Parts: sequence; C-alpha cells; structure tokens
Amino acid sequence: MTRRRSSAASTCSFSSACYTGSSDEDPVSPREKKQRNTTGFTDFCVKNISSQHSFGRREIEIAEKEMPGILALRKRASDDKPLRNAQIVGCTHINAQTAVLIETLVELGATVRWAACNIYSTQNAVAAALAEAGIPIFAWRGETEEDFWWCLDKCAHSDNWNPNMILDDGGDATHLMWKKYPIIFKGIKGIVEESVTGVHRLYQLVKIGKLTVPAINVNDSVTKARFDNYYNSKDSILDSLKRSTDIMFAGKQVVICGYGDVGKGCAQSLRGQGCVVYVTEIDPICALQASMDGFRVVRLNEIIRQVDIVVTATGNKNVITRDHMDRMKSGCIVCNMGHSNSEIDVNSLHSPELSWLRVRSQVDHIIWPDGRTIILLAEGRLVNLSCSTIPSFVVSVTAAAQALALIELYNAPTGRYKSDVYLLPKKMDEYVASLHLPILDAHLTELTDEQAKYLGLNKAGPFKPNYYRY
Amino acid sequence: MTRRRSSAASTCSFSSACYTGSSDEDPVSPREKKQRNTTGFTDFCVKNISSQHSFGRREIEIAEKEMPGILALRKRASDDKPLRNAQIVGCTHINAQTAVLIETLVELGATVRWAACNIYSTQNAVAAALAEAGIPIFAWRGETEEDFWWCLDKCAHSDNWNPNMILDDGGDATHLMWKKYPIIFKGIKGIVEESVTGVHRLYQLVKIGKLTVPAINVNDSVTKARFDNYYNSKDSILDSLKRSTDIMFAGKQVVICGYGDVGKGCAQSLRGQGCVVYVTEIDPICALQASMDGFRVVRLNEIIRQVDIVVTATGNKNVITRDHMDRMKSGCIVCNMGHSNSEIDVNSLHSPELSWLRVRSQVDHIIWPDGRTIILLAEGRLVNLSCSTIPSFVVSVTAAAQALALIELYNAPTGRYKSDVYLLPKKMDEYVASLHLPILDAHLTELTDEQAKYLGLNKAGPFKPNYYRY
Amino acid sequence: MTRRRSSAASTCSFSSACYTGSSDEDPVSPREKKQRNTTGFTDFCVKNISSQHSFGRREIEIAEKEMPGILALRKRASDDKPLRNAQIVGCTHINAQTAVLIETLVELGATVRWAACNIYSTQNAVAAALAEAGIPIFAWRGETEEDFWWCLDKCAHSDNWNPNMILDDGGDATHLMWKKYPIIFKGIKGIVEESVTGVHRLYQLVKIGKLTVPAINVNDSVTKARFDNYYNSKDSILDSLKRSTDIMFAGKQVVICGYGDVGKGCAQSLRGQGCVVYVTEIDPICALQASMDGFRVVRLNEIIRQVDIVVTATGNKNVITRDHMDRMKSGCIVCNMGHSNSEIDVNSLHSPELSWLRVRSQVDHIIWPDGRTIILLAEGRLVNLSCSTIPSFVVSVTAAAQALALIELYNAPTGRYKSDVYLLPKKMDEYVASLHLPILDAHLTELTDEQAKYLGLNKAGPFKPNYYRY
Amino acid sequence: MTRRRSSAASTCSFSSACYTGSSDEDPVSPREKKQRNTTGFTDFCVKNISSQHSFGRREIEIAEKEMPGILALRKRASDDKPLRNAQIVGCTHINAQTAVLIETLVELGATVRWAACNIYSTQNAVAAALAEAGIPIFAWRGETEEDFWWCLDKCAHSDNWNPNMILDDGGDATHLMWKKYPIIFKGIKGIVEESVTGVHRLYQLVKIGKLTVPAINVNDSVTKARFDNYYNSKDSILDSLKRSTDIMFAGKQVVICGYGDVGKGCAQSLRGQGCVVYVTEIDPICALQASMDGFRVVRLNEIIRQVDIVVTATGNKNVITRDHMDRMKSGCIVCNMGHSNSEIDVNSLHSPELSWLRVRSQVDHIIWPDGRTIILLAEGRLVNLSCSTIPSFVVSVTAAAQALALIELYNAPTGRYKSDVYLLPKKMDEYVASLHLPILDAHLTELTDEQAKYLGLNKAGPFKPNYYRY
Repeated sequence: MTRRRSSAASTCSFSSACYTGSSDEDPVSPREKKQRNTTGFTDFCVKNISSQHSFGRREIEIAEKEMPGILALRKRASDDKPLRNAQIVGCTHINAQTAVLIETLVELGATVRWAACNIYSTQNAVAAALAEAGIPIFAWRGETEEDFWWCLDKCAHSDNWNPNMILDDGGDATHLMWKKYPIIFKGIKGIVEESVTGVHRLYQLVKIGKLTVPAINVNDSVTKARFDNYYNSKDSILDSLKRSTDIMFAGKQVVICGYGDVGKGCAQSLRGQGCVVYVTEIDPICALQASMDGFRVVRLNEIIRQVDIVVTATGNKNVITRDHMDRMKSGCIVCNMGHSNSEIDVNSLHSPELSWLRVRSQVDHIIWPDGRTIILLAEGRLVNLSCSTIPSFVVSVTAAAQALALIELYNAPTGRYKSDVYLLPKKMDEYVASLHLPILDAHLTELTDEQAKYLGLNKAGPFKPNYYRY
Repeated sequence: MTRRRSSAASTCSFSSACYTGSSDEDPVSPREKKQRNTTGFTDFCVKNISSQHSFGRREIEIAEKEMPGILALRKRASDDKPLRNAQIVGCTHINAQTAVLIETLVELGATVRWAACNIYSTQNAVAAALAEAGIPIFAWRGETEEDFWWCLDKCAHSDNWNPNMILDDGGDATHLMWKKYPIIFKGIKGIVEESVTGVHRLYQLVKIGKLTVPAINVNDSVTKARFDNYYNSKDSILDSLKRSTDIMFAGKQVVICGYGDVGKGCAQSLRGQGCVVYVTEIDPICALQASMDGFRVVRLNEIIRQVDIVVTATGNKNVITRDHMDRMKSGCIVCNMGHSNSEIDVNSLHSPELSWLRVRSQVDHIIWPDGRTIILLAEGRLVNLSCSTIPSFVVSVTAAAQALALIELYNAPTGRYKSDVYLLPKKMDEYVASLHLPILDAHLTELTDEQAKYLGLNKAGPFKPNYYRY
Repeated sequence: MTRRRSSAASTCSFSSACYTGSSDEDPVSPREKKQRNTTGFTDFCVKNISSQHSFGRREIEIAEKEMPGILALRKRASDDKPLRNAQIVGCTHINAQTAVLIETLVELGATVRWAACNIYSTQNAVAAALAEAGIPIFAWRGETEEDFWWCLDKCAHSDNWNPNMILDDGGDATHLMWKKYPIIFKGIKGIVEESVTGVHRLYQLVKIGKLTVPAINVNDSVTKARFDNYYNSKDSILDSLKRSTDIMFAGKQVVICGYGDVGKGCAQSLRGQGCVVYVTEIDPICALQASMDGFRVVRLNEIIRQVDIVVTATGNKNVITRDHMDRMKSGCIVCNMGHSNSEIDVNSLHSPELSWLRVRSQVDHIIWPDGRTIILLAEGRLVNLSCSTIPSFVVSVTAAAQALALIELYNAPTGRYKSDVYLLPKKMDEYVASLHLPILDAHLTELTDEQAKYLGLNKAGPFKPNYYRY
Repeated sequence: MTRRRSSAASTCSFSSACYTGSSDEDPVSPREKKQRNTTGFTDFCVKNISSQHSFGRREIEIAEKEMPGILALRKRASDDKPLRNAQIVGCTHINAQTAVLIETLVELGATVRWAACNIYSTQNAVAAALAEAGIPIFAWRGETEEDFWWCLDKCAHSDNWNPNMILDDGGDATHLMWKKYPIIFKGIKGIVEESVTGVHRLYQLVKIGKLTVPAINVNDSVTKARFDNYYNSKDSILDSLKRSTDIMFAGKQVVICGYGDVGKGCAQSLRGQGCVVYVTEIDPICALQASMDGFRVVRLNEIIRQVDIVVTATGNKNVITRDHMDRMKSGCIVCNMGHSNSEIDVNSLHSPELSWLRVRSQVDHIIWPDGRTIILLAEGRLVNLSCSTIPSFVVSVTAAAQALALIELYNAPTGRYKSDVYLLPKKMDEYVASLHLPILDAHLTELTDEQAKYLGLNKAGPFKPNYYRY
C-alpha cells in the first residue's frame, strides 16, 4: 500500500469552527504548565489560555446568536436559580455551543467541573475562554488516553466538591464515578445523558440492577431527535459535500443508503438542489415511504456504476464494500452520514494495489491501478462532523433539553423518579420546542377553555400522548 | 335564514366513485323486494341487482388495478387458505375497494356476511356485483336507521352461521354481537377494527372489563396511519379543492389549521403547487416543525383577512368561528380535512342575515348582507370524502392490514393474545408495506448474515422496535 | 376492430365547465327556431335560451371571481370607454370566461357580434346568458360545419353593421372577412389573434403580401405564453389525470416527452406529488435543463416498460408509436398535453386485434389480446381541455391581453402600425401582469428617480427589452 | 468611524479555490526576477513557479473532472486541430478552470499568450503550472495597475507574434490592441467576449463605427446565461451564506430583492432548505411570476424588521439603503448576488457612529450604538465570488462556448460575419449543451425523418428559433 499524503495539496476548506489550530501546536503538555487566568484563578487545565481566550469568547458570542432556546431559558430562569446548589460533573464536547450550555447552568445557580468527552474535539480557544471566565475546565485538543481520564478525575473528585448531578455524553463520567467513587456516586440525584452509546450503557446498568440513581435519556426526546437527525442532516449534507469537494449538485446522481430520519433529510435537500436521488433500504416500511416520496428504491448493485455520490445513513456496517467501490465510476464521492464509522469498508481500501492521495483536509483520492479514482471524505467517519459545522441552532435544542432534564431531576420530589432511565417528560419536550419559537417569529395558538375540555387537554399541555413521535 | 338550493346550478363535479346514483332512485325499499342473482342465489339484500351488477364489477376491476397489496396477498395465500373455516361478520363502507377486500377474504378460505357501516356511503352497483358473485351482502345507499340494524342483524345471525371473526369499522357490528348475541360473541376468536371511533369503543370495553375476545387496532398501524393521514391528504387536498371550485392554486394564500400528519400533507402539496401557506398550531413541537419546514406559524387573527383558502386539520372543535368568517375576504374557500365535522362552526352560519346558495354539489356560497361571500365545501364535513375520491392505493394498505390482522388472530396459538386490544405486530406492519413495493418497482435490500448479527436483527425483520413510528 | 362504448360505465367525472349538457339534447336545430330573450331581443341564435340563461349567468359570475385582471381593466377603463364606437367581429370559444371578456368589451364602449371558433366547445348555458343580456351571439354545442360558417357570416355581415375590428381565435373570422367581404375587410382597423394556428395564417398572409391591416399576435406575449404554457400545465396536469382516473400520484413512474414550458410545468408538479419523473428531449439545451433540474433524461425505449404514466408535450407527431404502446405495462395511462393531437399515434390502435372499452367519459381502455390494457385519455387529444377545466385565472391573462391589444390598435395614431403582425408592446404586456397583482396581494416596488436614471428606465416601464422572455 | 479588523478572529473559511496564498507573500515583484521552468522555457512572468506548479497542476486536474464539456470538445477536435495556426491573445481570470480552457485551445492547434483580466483574482499556483507547461503567461495575484498593462502588452506584442484572434473578458485586451496596435488589430479575424462590460464596450465601438472585426458575444448565449445566472445562483447562494456564517437555513425569513434569473435561483434553493422567502420586484411580469411561484411579493418596508437574511439580485443601485439597515433586526445578514457592487449602500455604513468588526474573512459585524448588529458579507461585493467557489461545471459551459466561438470566427468563410457583434449561433449554443449531456448520463432522442419533416427541422438542429430563450 502506498499512502502518500501530499501536504502541499492539503488546504483547510472549512470555517473557523473547524479550528485546525495549527498555530497552537505547543509540544509541552498543559498538565506540565502552571496556568492562571487574568483574575488569578488556577483551578483548570487548558492550552494557551492567554493567547486564545478572547478569540474563544467571540466564538461563544457568535454561537449565542443562533442559540435562542438556551438563552431564553437562561433569561427566564435566572431569577429562580432552579439549579442553586447543584454541583454538576460535566463531560461533553468542548466547543462554542457547549460553552453556552455550561455558562447557562452556572447562570441558573449551579457550580460545575467540566471535562471533554472526546480527545480530539475540544476547541482550545473556547476552553480558554471558559477558564478565563472562572470555570474549572480540564480539556484540550489532542489529549492522550491517560490525559483523558486524568481530566475526568479532576472533575469527579476535588476539595470541597460534592457533586450531586452528572451531565454526560457517552457515559464515561458516569462510569468513572460509579466505578472509582461509589460513595460520591451514591450522592448523585440524577444523570442526564445525550448519546446513543451512553444511553445504551445506562440501560445495561439497569439490566444488571446496578443503576442506583435516576437518569434521563435526552437522546430520544422528540425535539432533539428530530433536529439532530432530520433537520441537521438536511442542512449539513449539502455543506459537507460542498466544502470538501466544491461539487455542483444539479444533475448529479446520488444514492442514499438508508431512509431513516437522516436519509430522509439528505434525500430531500439533495433533490431540492437538482440531484437525481436513489434510495436503498432493508425495512419495507421505510422503503415504501421512500417510494411514496418520489425516490426510486434500488439495490446498490443496480446503480453503483452510474452514481456520482454515495451517502450512507444506515447505522449498519459494511454497507459499502470493496466490491461496490471496485465498480464505481471514476470521480465518485463516497461519504458517511450515519451513526457509526463502519458503514464504508475503509479497511478494504488499505490495500497494496491502491494509492491514497490526500488532496485537501478530509479528502482522499483513492486511485486504482487503471487510474480510476474515488473520492473518500473524512476517511469514512461522519462527514458532517468532519467537513461541516453543526449548526448552533441544532445544538441549542439539545442544550435546552439537557438543562431542563437537569432541572427536572434536581427538583423532582422524592419518589417521582426511581433508579431507572426515563425519557424527557412530554411537557418538557414541548417546552424545549416553545423556547425556540420566538426567534423564528412563530406564534402559537392557545386553546379556548371549550376546546381544551373537548380534547381533554390542559391548556398548557402536554398536547400529545408520550408515544406520539412525529 | 334563507337557504335556497338552486338545483339548476347544481352539477355533479365528481367522478363515478362519488356515487351520483341518480338513476337508481327507486322508491321501493330493497327489503320489500324479492331479489335473486343470475345463479339463483337469494341470501342478500341490495338495490337493483340486475341493472347494476356489471357496472359495479367494472368498478371493482378498476379498483383492483390500484390495489396491488391486497391482490398480492390474495395470490400468495390463495393456496394456503389461511382463513379456511373462518366465518366473518363484516361491517364496512361498501365500495369498489372494500369489495376487493371482501373477495380476497373469500379467496383465502373465509365465508362472510357483510353489511354497511354507514347509511349513505354504499355504492349500490358494487353491492349488486358482490351479490351477483354470491356473497351475502345487506347494504344500500340511503338506508334508514332501522334498515341499518336490520342489515347488521342479517350478518350476525342466520341459519347455519356460526361466526368466529368480526371485521368492524366503527364498532357497530361488535356492539350488536356483544349486546344482542352474547353467546355467539363468546365464540368469536378475534375482532379487527380500523376506525378511531371503533378503537375507542374497544378500549372502553377493556376499561370496564367487558372485552372477552382479543382485538387488533388496525387504525394505528404505522403503515396505515401514514397512508391515511399523510399521503392521502397530500394527494386529495388538491383534488378536493379543484373538483369543487376549479380554483387555480398558484399564488393563492392558504392557512392550514393544524400541522399533524394531515396538515403536513396538505401544506406540502399546496406549497408545491405555488400557494403561500400559513400554519396555525397549539402544540409547540408541531409548530416548531412547521417553522423549520419553511411555513410561517401564525394565529388565525393575523392572516384571516388576507387568505384565499382555509383548511382545518386539527381534530378540534370550533377552530373556525363565525367571528373569523365575518372577517374573511369575499370568495374565501373554507373546508375541513380533519377528523371531526365540528372544526368549522357551520351552525353559526345558519343565521337569518346570511343567505345560502348551493352552486354545485357540495359547494355553498354563504352570502353576507353586504354581498361578501364565502365558499363552504361539503357543509364543513370532511372535504376529501365528499369532494374527492379516496385513492384505491391508500385503501389497499388498510385492506391488507385488515386481512393480515384477521389471519393473525384466527391462526394465533392459544395464549398469544388475551382479551385486550393489540396493535398490528410490527412484522405484519412491515409485511403490509412489503406487499406494496413490487408495483412501485421498489427493490428491497437484504441484510447479510454479518450485518444482521451486527444489528442484532432477524434477516426477515422486524427491523424496528415497536415504538418506532416514522 | 371492435370498438365498444360501454355507456353503462360512462360517467361524467368532470365539473360543470365540461359541459355535460345532457339535458339540452334537443333534436331541432337552433337555426330552425324562433327565439327571443325576456326583453324581446331576437338578434342571436343559441340553444334553449329560456331554460339555461340563469345557470349560465351564475357560471359567468363564478368565473368573474377568478378573473381579476379583466375585471380590473373593466373598472379602470369604464369611464374612458376606450372602445367607444368600435364594432368588433368576435370568434372564440364560448364559455364562462370568454363571456367575461365579451361583456368587458361592451362595457368599454364596443358593440360586438360573436360566433364560436369550435363546433364542440360552446357552453350552451353561457351562450344563452349572453343572448339574454342582449348580445348578438351565434353559437351552440354541436354545430355542423355548415352551421359554423352560417354563424360566422351572421357576425361578419348584418344590417347597420360596419365592423372595424376583429378578435379571432384560429383565423376563421379573418379568413371569412378577407375572402367573402373584401370591402368590409378594408375598413378593419386591426386584428387581434390569440392562437398558434391563427398567427401562422396571418404570417402567411404577410408573406404573400395580402395582409392589408395591422394585427397583434397575442399568443406570444410573455405573460400569456408563460401562463398558458407553464403555469396552466403545472396546474392542470394533476387535475386531468386525477379526474379521469382517480390515480394516486405518489410513487408512480412518469415519462414526460418534451421539456419545453409545458413539459417543465408537468414535470414539476408531478414530482411535487411524489412521482418519479423521466424526461425525453431532442433539443440538447432543453435536455440539459431537465438534467440540471434533477430529471433523468432518457430515450423512451429505456423506460417504456416500467412507467405508469406517459405524458406528451412536444408539438411533434407520432412521439408515442404503436411499437411503444405494445411494450407498455398493463394499466399504463397515456395522455397528451402538447399542441397537436398527433403526438400519440392513436390511429395505430384502431386495429382488429385490439378492443376498445370506454370506461368513463374521455377514458378508453385499449385491450391487447393477452389482456394487457393501456388507458388512453381523451383519445389522444389535449387532455387538459378534455378532462380538466382551464382555470379562469389563466384565461383572465389572455383576455386582458386581447382587450388591451384591441384598445391599442383601435386608438393607435395613424402610422404607428403598418399592415403587419406585431407582438403586444412590452409595456402592455407588463400592464397585463400588473392588472393581476392586487388579487394576489403582491406589492410592486417603485424605482426611485436615482435608480431609474441609473438603469436608464422610465419609472413606469417598460422594464425589460422586448427580447427578454423569462 | 472605528473600523477595527480583528485579525485574531479572521480565519479563512473557504476552500482551496480561495487561495489566500499566505505562503507566497514574496515582496519582490515577479517582473524583477529571472524565472525559468524545468525545461528552460522563460517567456512568462508568474510568481514562484518552482514551489507552486505541482500544486497548481493538481488543482487543474481536479477542475478537469468537473469540466466535461470542454474536455469532450478537446477530445473530439484534437485530431482536426480547428485552431491550427490561430494566434490568440487571451485575457481572462487565471484559475484552474480557465487553465483548462487555455490548454484546450493549445490542444486544438492554437498558440496563445495570456494575461489576467483582474489584478486580484489570479491563482498563482495555476499560473505557475501553465508556465511550467510552456505557456507564455503573464499574471500574478496583486498586480499593480501598471503591472496589469505591462502584462497585457506582453501578450499583444512580442517577437514572431502575429495574433489573429482575441479572447477577452472585460474588453481590456481588445481596447489595448485597438488603441495601441491598430495595425496588428487589423489582422485580427475575430474577438470573443464573455462579460457584460466587454460586450457593452463592443457595442459602443459598433455604434461609433470603429469596430473593424467581427465579434461574438458569448455572454448572452442561452446556455451560458442560464448556467451563470440561474443554476449557478441556485447552487452558490447556500454555500456563500453557509461558509461565511454557518447559519442554519430552516425557519429563517429571507427577502430576495429582484426575481430575475439570479433571484429565481436564490429563492428556490432557500425555500428548498426551509426558509420563508419574500421577493421584491419593480417589474410586474417578474412580480407576477414570483407570486405564481408561491412567493409573497412585498415592498422592503413591509418586512425589513423581521427578516433574518437580505439578498440583493437586481443589477440596480442602493436597493438596500442605510434607512433599511437602520431598521433591520440584530443579527440580520446582508449580502449581494446581483451584477453590481452598488446594490447595498455600503458607503452609508462608513459613518462615525457605527463600528465595524471583522469576525471572519469576508464577514463584518456592523455595530449600532445600541449594540444592534448587522452581518455584512464581502463588503457588499458579489458574495458568491467572495465567499463561495464557482462550480467548475458552470465554467465548463462558458469555456466551451468561448472555444466554439473562436473556432467559428476563425474558420468562417469570408463574408459570413461582418464587423459587428453577434450572438453565438443557435446551433453552437446547442452544441455547447450537448457536450455536457454524457457526463450527466442524459440521452438525447433523435428525430425520425418523418418528424423532422413535420417540424421543418434539420435532424441535427438547430431545434429552436434564435429568439427562443428558455
């Protein structure tokens, strides 16, 4: 295998939110440095606080403009301080949008200690801005595995720190607390988890009878799921493809593998821009929807030689095999919008007869011996995380749901929640939505008394049964 | 009030499926006539069998072309005869599409006796065709209330008739059997119900502990709900408005009250034809979706003076009040696509200062003293039932679900179902969908063994958990 | 050939505008009857004036509601009477919409005599209403060829009648006058023609040097062309297919032959309703547009076996051949939206081995020996004229253009127009458009003096050069 | 006025095509350096040939993949060499796409000398690659005015150089030749010009009788105009907004000023992504189209306080005034997609009470004293040139038209063209389109002999009259 990376041809094609951060490559680990912010505060560990915090603050301010829901919550609840005395261990991606959440929690009365849930995704400038604002944060881009657990430990355990809530993304904070600090874990009033993986781990704990605190699964709240999957995909598939390849959409043939919410979003916006879109599906209900929505439902074999773009959105593995890629036409773009990084069998491309050429950041040309080339984005990882930005508006929905879940668990009367995993109550799900209406200039209609009675509903909601998911 | 009906201006604007039926106005009740079909069979009661059966047969044949799912089922299961020895009491609308269902049940081995669930909706020619085919059917357009129960009784009770299944639409057959023939009711193995009302009545029975047989609620199967609500509305709103008013859509301003599945379908197709669409909502989650889908979410008051078309799709009452109608501009069209006939306060229009003028079938001009006129469709009843036709393809989905539910309940091993109301099992829901794929030329992808294992799924499905509703 | 017409199965599926007219089948020719209206006026010849005029009047009133442009013109110019003393020979289709035009011309000061341009298309009730209003009209549905010329003659020549303008649709009035009454023809100040055929005939006259009066070609005015072709097709293709076949659109595969303005309109609305749309083209520029708009451009052979609907929109002949129809799948719907009735080779279907079965008005099943059936609409004639209604809003645009062209020619100073064929002046084209904006609640922006100067435009228009056609 | 440029917050958000080129900031002018390529060739003047040519070559190769038309032409005509002995003075933007054109001309037999038409837009790496390939090219990013004319002079006049064709973009090459080298200008066989400005200058020359050679106006060819305006705008408006602001489109309110082809493209793709779109227009025909296409036509005043995004596409000046900007809501994004840079009155924002803050490349926050902020993109210049990339596919169309125009003029028999400005002949326009069909997998239908005769067309085209513009 010849894997050449042509750094000459490598150019950042992405917006500032990508923070490739080449300027802050400082070989000394943050853990070995003494850092303090301008007020003398030192209970944090980030990279280069002094040079980056003001840039990070500006990015936070830009994000705030597109996060109306969480800001509205901040404003409405800042007098009540519904999180007064809450002590939260936080573990999430660290970026401008999560910074808005963290600062909101503080504004609502909580004290927090925060670490990154991913060793690569931290925006150092944002972490610096949070540290400058006096928040105990322990995170930088490019942590080692050992750094990662060290940071998390700093959040779980510290002097005068008696955490009573966990906000988790992936389950690592929960796992560390449960495993290493069982006594502190006993004092936890509630866990809020937003990832598929973390939720899965919680259900495992329940199954073996080891979950001793209530948890809310924010991931499956209707509003969050709808935004993260459908609206976010519809918005970001175009951007992901465009920024990485500058392709013109009109007239291109595209196959979307999977017609769940992500596939639906991708299919609709690509068709809107003039693509001919094909869909593959294993589930007859989704396949029928794709047909009724005007898409040809095919097997990959039928169209693999003719498509210009392949997008996976299945959550499955090896959906695109080496055999498929052997038959694609030269110039075909291949990318993944699904949940896992295994949808495209990238391993099969690390093979001696193929050359790799990195032409831009996140863009590889894989070249067959006959010169035929396929264009692989983000090495098969999630293309909208790698080649686009997540809209702040989408994150605002998740952040509002997380904050409300924390408030609910923290303030719930004893007995309302047992040691189990709960969905966000319908009424709070509706509240998350309502927080985002004013910025969109959307005006809700109120039921009359007569109508509320007729429908058997409370005028303040909830308006739908829990199982209603549309 | 001056309610003039200008019969001169009244013209049928609809297709044959609207049952103009003017030719069969025979003053003698079918119950007072001796009828026999061409083979001498007499166990039925319909209107004018001899003059109409061949027209009815043709309508059935036309419907079959658009009902691929139920026909595929008929073909696949006709050797197995999974309903062999089933004796089914049926009570549904009687039209070309339900005739296809009835004849399918017979093909699958069942014997049936059938009545209409509605005194107005029977297509006499279709009933005649069924009778000609030797099916005991008791139904005609314009039954009296007493006729209705007489017909139903004919189906419930007869010589050599030991019914063991009920297929119901509205709950009347179930109610009659339960109330009047409790002993026969004991022998019922299962009930299949497809209407909101009927399902509600079943749940009431469960609540008071009186349901003694298992029932399947077909109404809430994913496939059926999606078709009946979203796809059917998207298709029929244009047709309903066009056939009744010949309006050109492009450039018209429309308000859709309610953004559930029906509202979503209406909004999308009206926008597709060039309308400016506004949405009203009470539920913030639906309101947020409307906004994100590009519709302005308003209160009725904000736009009531400027819209050209008002469509209700709420399931609520008095959504359009007299006060709203007092402010509409002249020529505004008002119609109802929702579940109830109470969404528009039609009663308030029966008022002395307003004149009614029937200009076409199902189309009234309501004229204010100053000459301002609003155009009310179907007197506020469901406009797509009154001014359009229900696509056979939509009914095919429901019919397939009904047939599969009957097969499931009839063949289920003892103990699988208790005396309760069940949703159609996910796997059967998926099967309903799969029956409709071949006609759409849609090709399903099959999981590899490796993928099935990775996802923890059976290769034949079900592919989604029961709660998954999209 | 066995051509059976099953009258039993024939039901009118269309709105009143389709002229069901079954009640006025009176075997006596109108020419042999003495008729007078309620005021004693007798200078007309229509069918059954007394029984139908009030129904016709109501249809005219309904049409007026959707013809804002021509009504606005009527109102704005009714004081000026810009057609005072104009004597107009009119020859157009006679229906509710053209009645609105005729009455507008009278309101603007003209006297008129009017005949039908087509022997089948007259709405008798509307003709009756015009006669009742005192307008000399000579037209009925089902004229013979000889009747046709008799009626036209009645308009061209009469006592005290010195026509000075012609409003023509197809060129027959012009031809008659030019041929039979050359002396009267000399006195004509201008001709307004709206059809492709009529315009073609005028250009022929110019070519041979025989046109002695100026004429305006309304057919190619931008506004009229855009409405008649694009917007009207987008609106009426759905209606034409739905009323005749009750088909559900979602998921159907459709091929549109031709991607001119008509094809563009059809393609867009069918896709909007969930169809998979293919396009065929001979012109690479139009083909490229189809591709860039997201449609697969194919040759008929590639997809003829798989499509559910075939729509022609080419203006060409034998686009759909017997060979194509031999390969269509059973149930395929075939119809023509183009300019000529020769696009589908219907003659090839009049062949002994095929049976024809009329299942509804305008709907024939053509049955192959093996039972395969294709569904032919309107016997290959223009389906939107036969199976749908032309929206009044579309006709309003044409009518306004016709009226303005008459006013222009009638009032033009000597020398402005020579004996040639002219397009409607750009400014009048813009005026036609502006007449239709208020009803759509559209608010035009006005140039500032500075901007007008910068662009070198008059603030009142014209805003585009004459060749600008979008 | 306080105009701060926060370089810390300034990050390149754009793809490689933006070539900020920070690495090649060499203070010495290329004119003062001796350069030679690897084969010893020295007749060129670019920046840093040795370090950049291979990166430039890769960018050219990437561009080739999306320029099927020009490559197809290169292939089809490379044997014929239709430009054999042509000596072309070229003056265009120098980027990867124009490099593909230049190398195609050479492949077709021409010799060329080339300069940049703009002092800022040259991609140095591409210029280096051309020089390395032995093409006499004189261009670099950041030329002075004096450099510009020096470069152009190098192309117009040189040893052994007898130019006989001009390919111009803006008219400067033509002007220089005409003014400074009238004798050489006499020998020119034809000029091909693609810009609005250059075409205008040619018409001026015609008007004053000074144009002595034939010229082809490529700018107004149907294919080119349609791509540059409609398809390019539809594609690039989303990209321009997204890369510069990361905004989520769904639910945003947008006003598009102007509904010509550019406005139509913007309106359609923004609506497709879930925006609520308003349109302003001065021309009633365009306004009526906007209405019929489903957009509210408003005056800016009506909605200026509520919109989130303002896009100009008018070609007019001061469409967005300071008065409008004073009333926009905080966070409103303002950008220009029109033809001139005067659509937004940017000058009015250079005022002492407002602060400017550059937050990213091409993105300024203009801050009012009360903190209200508007986000101005590209300082009011064309946003899709500044904040997005022009798709190579669009350039391919223009380049093919330019090459064909050169071939046509170079090979035309004497007398076919006089000293005037011509549109590209319809047949060549169609040929440009046809060159782009294969890559889109679009299959053209061929007329039968019978059909060609019926339509009066040659089977090879042209298929439409010259005035047909859709």
